[in-house]
Amino acid sequence: MAILRFTLEYDGTEFEGWQSQPEGHRTVQDTLETALQRVTGKGVRVVAAGRTDSGVHAEGQVASAEIETGVACFELQRALNTILPRDLAVVGLDEQPGGFHAQHDARSKLYRYRIWNGSWPSPLRARRSYWLRVPLDVAAMGEAAHCFEGRHDFASLQNAGSGVRDTVRTLYRVEVAGSPGGEIRVEVEGSGFLRHMVRNLVGILMEVGRGRLEPAGVPTLLAARDRGAAPAPAPAQGLTLVWVDYGFPR
Amino acid sequence: MAILRFTLEYDGTEFEGWQSQPEGHRTVQDTLETALQRVTGKGVRVVAAGRTDSGVHAEGQVASAEIETGVACFELQRALNTILPRDLAVVGLDEQPGGFHAQHDARSKLYRYRIWNGSWPSPLRARRSYWLRVPLDVAAMGEAAHCFEGRHDFASLQNAGSGVRDTVRTLYRVEVAGSPGGEIRVEVEGSGFLRHMVRNLVGILMEVGRGRLEPAGVPTLLAARDRGAAPAPAPAQGLTLVWVDYGFPR
Repeated sequence: MAILRFTLEYDGTEFEGWQSQPEGHRTVQDTLETALQRVTGKGVRVVAAGRTDSGVHAEGQVASAEIETGVACFELQRALNTILPRDLAVVGLDEQPGGFHAQHDARSKLYRYRIWNGSWPSPLRARRSYWLRVPLDVAAMGEAAHCFEGRHDFASLQNAGSGVRDTVRTLYRVEVAGSPGGEIRVEVEGSGFLRHMVRNLVGILMEVGRGRLEPAGVPTLLAARDRGAAPAPAPAQGLTLVWVDYGFPR
Repeated sequence: MAILRFTLEYDGTEFEGWQSQPEGHRTVQDTLETALQRVTGKGVRVVAAGRTDSGVHAEGQVASAEIETGVACFELQRALNTILPRDLAVVGLDEQPGGFHAQHDARSKLYRYRIWNGSWPSPLRARRSYWLRVPLDVAAMGEAAHCFEGRHDFASLQNAGSGVRDTVRTLYRVEVAGSPGGEIRVEVEGSGFLRHMVRNLVGILMEVGRGRLEPAGVPTLLAARDRGAAPAPAPAQGLTLVWVDYGFPR
């Protein structure tokens, strides 16, 4: 048995998220596991670094699985890409030392959120970004973004019903780039994330960008430790999991 | 009656090209005309600068129409964007002097073709580019590209059955950018184009990139004035009409 690490790219638009679901639902995990079953002839369970929501994309999602396979990684990767649908691809595949686990061993992850801030909708950006036509104050958003950096209790950013008790996480970097009227990108790098945390964080930054919330109000929101105090989450289609870092050369 | 100029962005994936077709076919022209009918209550005929093929995208297609409308351009644009599907948007709308015609008055057009030259398919690029995994010789492609620049008889690049007799056209600029293994872009700017001309041109450049054709062979291909002498056209999904120029401030 070998432990394999998959690097995956997907367009999340037509997937109901990563996580396996009962038949009739199309998820990334089920699609990959079905392809692995067809290629290896065996039932394989795959674990992802981050279980992306319905509609969320990935440039570099990482997943691991214990597989008994007689073929080289390159051959397996080629066979998988031949049968996978065109919105999912294995863009990297290698063997890892025993015990490797895509979720537990991840040191940090980078998420990127795209806001299309033009006056009119942009069909060529529609699948990958969220359209918000009100010109945003990017400088204020950048100022607010830095309030999230560091070690904090992020209970205010956790969706209700997730059941996670320990809501303390560390964000290494929260940055806003771009200009009003064009594409604005929010990048969030951290060691771990609560459910809907990035989308809730971006929802707050959009309120700041619209002038409905002062950057100075962000620490107060965090201190409230109450999801009800924060604005609605940003829609899923703007979010992309860019990469997962394991602290060793990839 | 006013003559209006529409600037259109569309994701061509789910359209069967620009040109109006019998019911049951989904085209950009029909979709726009139906929306105009709904908003103005009148049947309107729209003319495009370039009739893009099925699957071809546009960042800045231009179309004109003679319309009797009591509302300001901005109001009409807003009403249209509210009812248009998310893969088509009116990103610009203004009134033009009498006699303006989007096709006849166009001075030049820019097309961009995207080739994804990575080892593996890229789901996030799949709708907008063509995947060719053989590492391409970008320098040779660039050298070949310049052979197309200037005034030439492009009969070798015209698809059979188009019926156009005068096949002399002028290309102002044909350029190749990017690097092997990544995204490679071909930009073609010219005053007028024959049917499938850009896709046939890119088909030749890809043969050069693969080393199957020398750049020096391109003038010979052109001189043959015979479509049969040239390689297959590049697939539609990589092509985007970027802008149309009318020689006055837009």
